[in-house]
This record gives sequence, C-alpha cells and structure tokens, in this order.
Amino acid sequence: MILKMKYVHYGKCVRCGKLYPATPNLTTCECGGILDIQYDYEAIKRDFKKEDLKAREKSMWRYRELLPVEDQTAPPPLRVGWSPLYEAPRLAGILGLGKLWVKDDGLNPTASLKDRASSMAVAKAIEAGADTIACSSTGNAASSLAGNAAAAGLKTYIFVPSRAPKGKVAQLMTFGATVISVQGSYEDTFELSKAAIDKWGWYNRNAAINPYLSEGKKTVSLEIMEQLHWKAPDFVALSVGDGCTIAGVWKGLKDLYAIGFIDRLPRLISVQAEGCCPLNRAIAENKPWHPMEENTLADSIAVGVPRNPDKALNAIRESNGLVVNVSDQEIMDAQKLLGRTTGVFGEPAGVTGTAGVKKLCEAGVLGKNDSVVSIVTGNGLKDVANTIAHCGEPISIPSDMELLLKAFAERGIHPEG
Amino acid sequence: MILKMKYVHYGKCVRCGKLYPATPNLTTCECGGILDIQYDYEAIKRDFKKEDLKAREKSMWRYRELLPVEDQTAPPPLRVGWSPLYEAPRLAGILGLGKLWVKDDGLNPTASLKDRASSMAVAKAIEAGADTIACSSTGNAASSLAGNAAAAGLKTYIFVPSRAPKGKVAQLMTFGATVISVQGSYEDTFELSKAAIDKWGWYNRNAAINPYLSEGKKTVSLEIMEQLHWKAPDFVALSVGDGCTIAGVWKGLKDLYAIGFIDRLPRLISVQAEGCCPLNRAIAENKPWHPMEENTLADSIAVGVPRNPDKALNAIRESNGLVVNVSDQEIMDAQKLLGRTTGVFGEPAGVTGTAGVKKLCEAGVLGKNDSVVSIVTGNGLKDVANTIAHCGEPISIPSDMELLLKAFAERGIHPEG
Repeated sequence: MILKMKYVHYGKCVRCGKLYPATPNLTTCECGGILDIQYDYEAIKRDFKKEDLKAREKSMWRYRELLPVEDQTAPPPLRVGWSPLYEAPRLAGILGLGKLWVKDDGLNPTASLKDRASSMAVAKAIEAGADTIACSSTGNAASSLAGNAAAAGLKTYIFVPSRAPKGKVAQLMTFGATVISVQGSYEDTFELSKAAIDKWGWYNRNAAINPYLSEGKKTVSLEIMEQLHWKAPDFVALSVGDGCTIAGVWKGLKDLYAIGFIDRLPRLISVQAEGCCPLNRAIAENKPWHPMEENTLADSIAVGVPRNPDKALNAIRESNGLVVNVSDQEIMDAQKLLGRTTGVFGEPAGVTGTAGVKKLCEAGVLGKNDSVVSIVTGNGLKDVANTIAHCGEPISIPSDMELLLKAFAERGIHPEG
Repeated sequence: MILKMKYVHYGKCVRCGKLYPATPNLTTCECGGILDIQYDYEAIKRDFKKEDLKAREKSMWRYRELLPVEDQTAPPPLRVGWSPLYEAPRLAGILGLGKLWVKDDGLNPTASLKDRASSMAVAKAIEAGADTIACSSTGNAASSLAGNAAAAGLKTYIFVPSRAPKGKVAQLMTFGATVISVQGSYEDTFELSKAAIDKWGWYNRNAAINPYLSEGKKTVSLEIMEQLHWKAPDFVALSVGDGCTIAGVWKGLKDLYAIGFIDRLPRLISVQAEGCCPLNRAIAENKPWHPMEENTLADSIAVGVPRNPDKALNAIRESNGLVVNVSDQEIMDAQKLLGRTTGVFGEPAGVTGTAGVKKLCEAGVLGKNDSVVSIVTGNGLKDVANTIAHCGEPISIPSDMELLLKAFAERGIHPEG
C-alpha cells in the first residue's frame, strides 16, 4: 500500500511492539494491545518551524505536521481547539502555588476536550470512506462525536450508560445521533458498542481502540506549550478516566520535545476520584491495575475498567508523574473555587484536575516554587444537576426593596461595599 | 474633564439629541432616552486599516479603534469573541436559500453573546474605579457578567426572574455572584435591580441603561464581516428580546460602513416569539410598541417590556429590515434542524433567528438569490430541560445484542447503512 501520510511511519503496538501500516481504519494489535502512531521526527524537525504557525488558523489543525492525516484531508467543519489558556494569579495565591494556568477546554464546539478526538475521528472516517461512526462513551466523547459528525454529514450510533447527564443526552438527540442508553455500567456500555461495531462495520471512535484519537487529544498539549511560548511548566494536571486523554497529553509533550520545540518535559499529575481510581491505585501501589466500582459524581471519569491502561500508566511513569485522588466534595469545592477566582465553569470531571492540584498544595507537595497547568476538560453546563445540588440557593423574593434589605441583613450581606 | 478616548466624541441621546461627555459611568439622558456613543469616524478611517487586524489577538478586543475604552484599559481576562462563523450549505439547501452562515456565539466563555457586553462592562467598571457591578437579566447577561467579573476580581449583584433556567443559575452561583431570584416577570426583576443600583451606587450593567454595552455587542457584526472578508450578506438574522443586541448588531454594521470597510449594509431580520413580540408588532403595524405577556419558552427573549425599544426599532427601520414571529414549536424544530445539519446546539432563544429564517424561506420571502447570516446567541446547554422535552428519548436497553436488534427493528433503523 502507498502511505500517503508524509510524516507517519506506522502504528506500533505498545504491548508487543508489532508494526502496522497506518491505514485509516486501524484498530488494535492482534495481541490486544493498543497501537501508538509513530512519526518521522527528523523529517518533521527539518520541515516544521515555530514561525510556520504564525499565519495558520487558530484551531487544533494548525499542527498539521504532527497529525496523522493524509495530505489532502481537510479539517472537519467544527472549529475545534485553540481554547484559552488563562493565567490564574489569584487562584495561585490562594493555593500557595508559584504559577498556575487554566486551560479551558470546555469552550470547544460541543463543550469538552473530546472534540479534539472526534474531529480526528471524522477526518479519518472520511479517509476510510465510511459514512457512519460509532462509539461508546460516558457522555462527552458521545456528544462530541455526534456534533462533529453531524457537521460533516456523517451518521452516528452512540452508546452511553444510562447515568449520562441530561445535558449530554440533549446534545446527542439534537445532533441527530441514534442513541442507545445502556442500563448498566460503562463496562456494559462499551461491550455492547463493541459487539455492534463488529457486527455492522461502522467506523470505530472508541479512543482505546482507534489509535488516531490520542493524536487528536494531544493537540491540547501542543496548544498549551505554544500559548506558554514554548516554556514548559513543571506540571500538567488533569483528571483521568479511561486513560486516553492523559496518554494524548503526554504524547503531545513528547512530540514537541522530539522536534526540539520545548527543551524539557513537564511532569504529569493524574487526578482520579477516590471512588474510582484504578489507574492511580496501580501507580501508588506499583502493582497491575484492577477494576473498581464507579463511585463518583464525576461521570466522565467514572470508569471502573479503564480501556487504555497501558498508554496511561506508561505516560504517568515516563513523566515521573504524581497521582492524587479526590473526593466528590473536593471536586465540587474546586468547581466553586475555580469559578469564583477565574470565571471558568467546569463540569465535575472537568475540574477534578484542579481539585487534585489544590489537594497537593494543601499537602505541601506543590508550592511556591512550582508552576502548573490545570486542564479543565469539560464545561460545567454539561451537568448542572450536581452543581445545583452543591452550590446553594439564590435569594428568592418578590420585587420589593424592603424584602431585599431584610434578605441581605439575614445573610450578613453588606451591599454598600 | 479630559477625554482620554481618542476616537470617541460623546454620548448622544437617541430621543432628544442631548450630548454627554463619555465618562465611564454614563447612563441614560435626563429625558429618559438611551445614549448612543458617537465616534470620530474620519480619524478612525485615517488610522485603522484592515491589514492592521492581521497581527491582532482573535477576540472582540481586536477592533480597538471602534471600542469606547480608554487607551490604557486592558481587555478583561476572559477571552470573549471571535466565535466561529460556519458556512452551512446543507441547511441552506434544505431551506432553499442561496447562502447561509451560522455564527455560533454560544461558544463564548460563559456560552452566550452577552459576554461581549459583559466584557465591556468590566472594562468600563474598572475605568470608573468600581469594585461591584450589578444587573438584571433573563439569565445570560447575568451569568455572563458574573463570570467576566469573577475573572477580573469584581463583585456582582445579579437579579434574575425566578423562571431563569437552572443552567444559568448554576453558573451564577459558581461564579460567586450574590443572586436575587425575583418572583415575578422580567419587568419586576428590572425594577428591583434599578432601585437597588440607585440605592447602593453599584456599576450598572443593564444594557438598556449603560450605553457602552451595545458597543461590546456590536463586535459580533465586526467579526462576521471580517470572517466574510468584508463582503456583506443580504441579511443578518437574530432573535430579539430587550432590543439591545439587534441595536448593537446594527451599530457594528454602520461603523464598518462609515469607515469604508464594507460597501453596503445588510438588512436585519428581527425574529421574536409569537407569544412575546412587542417590537415586531410595532414594526408590522407601524405603531408605537405596547407591552405584551411573556409567553414563550425562549426565556432569554421573553421580554414583555423591552428596555431598548428606541435603538431596536431604529435599527430595524433604518436597515429596511424584516420582522417575523415564530411559535415555540417552530423554535424547537429549528434547534433540532440546526443541530443535525451543522453541529451547532443553540438554546431556544439562540436558535430563534434560525427559526425565523426557516419561516421566511417557507413563505417564499427568502430564497435562492439571498445570502443570510444567522446569529446563534446562546448555547443549548444553558437550558436542556426544554430540549429534553422536545427531542425525544434515546433507546434504553440493557447490554444485550438481541435487545438491540429488536429495538432497531421496532424503530425501523437499518444499521447496515
């Protein structure tokens, strides 16, 4: 076969090392391992310079040389990526941290980081000549695939666990997906989607099976580093469920290091929910991972059987990373703290990374000498039920100044400043 | 006083013509009329060229010469504006329209166009030396002000009608606003906020009182025209409630025409809900406007007593605009149609403009020879309750292939393509 991707060598199994030609519908290795897309970094180093970026569109597709798509493949219609990176000096001050930046990836078209993988999936599905894409997802990958596919005129079959928040389901239905809400865990959902994909041959957007998807996700790292003018922070913190996102984040950092755009690698901070932390437990105990219950309100990372443990564990270990688990209360506290100090509203799993940073600051692990980027992976509007339950009630009164004065007095509010 | 804004002449009452120096805390005229900020277009024409934009940040603040802020004022922290403009050929085909673009302003930081006004409000409040801002709002201006102010370290007092959707209230509480939920109409809410602002002297972000806010909103037009390479479409369609947004949209178009960036002016399409259309009724009947009930699920435009009728009616008339009213069913149908053809998920009021375009196409008013930009003013995630009620239910089954086959068969779904 003729390889039309100038800078891509092949897909390589992370478990057994077997190589595969990088065809658009590549899935896992025959040994069951997930593949990693391997690039010709020398050629990229030769052809791709930081200055080339100046004139390019502000989207994830600006890093074309580092993306596994054929030369003639156009970026799919929705404008994914180039989400804002905010410096957060007040929050850093409260936490006692040297420097803190917040990457608000909830501002992607369907309101989560998953748009990066879905945009890639749509591009590769079109290369493969497919007209239908399918996935299973805790919610964000689902709504993201449905939106990106709808914009490109492709059909979607989406499998979500029945616990998926209403906001995500509303998106799916609006984008015209065929939605199968599976009464069971994420594991049950994944298995049914796998069987259906095998049966009908839809293009597979399960991030732990399709090796191109982490290549989309890695663009969040490429952007962070460009937004920091290629000066790497000490740490990059994010929430971890399936493991695909942290694997993508690490891949992006290694790419930039390999082509000489950054001169050191940050350490990763893997944050999971206490009630569902199989990957962090494996790292902390230095043992193989084992399934766990899915006991957390942070639905996007409630993944008891992570589907990408190999890449995720490699990433944390290779980066000399930190792991930290947080309670649901700590997650919701972080949501509020982040909102009132930075104006960023993340969904529970979206702010779990920030909750982990806060906990590590309180434990004295992070402090004045450390610089951290915290990735907010999804928008708080995706799941307002949990926010409503935790954020308290507004003052509720008829339109009457006397009642307003009374309400302020009762609550100790001093409106005169 | 020394006027530090190079290109701003003054504020001029749209009703009586009285002029006011453009101080940061400017409100309405003594006659009760709203003010319009007047610029020195000759100086702007001399100093500001299209090419200047190339190197500037992709945000609403790139049009600095056309914005009423002092030279040293920094853009507030949240990155507002430069939302995507998507060409929508499939939707145009379905509607029988020549050309259609969709401006997805739901991708602003707090997920609505109102961020443009709130970013301006924060900038002007800081110029005024204020540490507290207040507003009344059907929801979006509120959450937008709360988020933009939180990022800048300012306090907020926010008045919303008790019907405001949960998503918006969740945002407000997360951003740390003091929220007063008023048991009554938007009119009742507005009056209580006005009394409280008068009493405590907070900086006023009511868009119909503070003349700077339409100047923020107008950036949506500046962006649309730049994104269309300064080739004006025939029409710009959007939903109308208070009237401030359509006034801002028109102001931006006129600005660009005045400085020679565009050589013709589009016509506006003002879309209101059938159950609450006081401004469109005034235009259609060529009579003064009168209050109406607030009978629509499109909460953001459920404004029975519009607060900016003068500027809004002027804008529609000056542009030789069209008015069209749509039912709630037509709004929800448009939400679905837009979602499945473009991947854009707008809130009910956000897609009301699109619903109006659809209705005008069906009536033969718009067709093959027309080009239209439809502005989606807010994100569908703001109000999923209405979407859920209208979009139907997903297939709900346990993880079982036999049950999946049965469910597909019952619904006439052919997964083999």
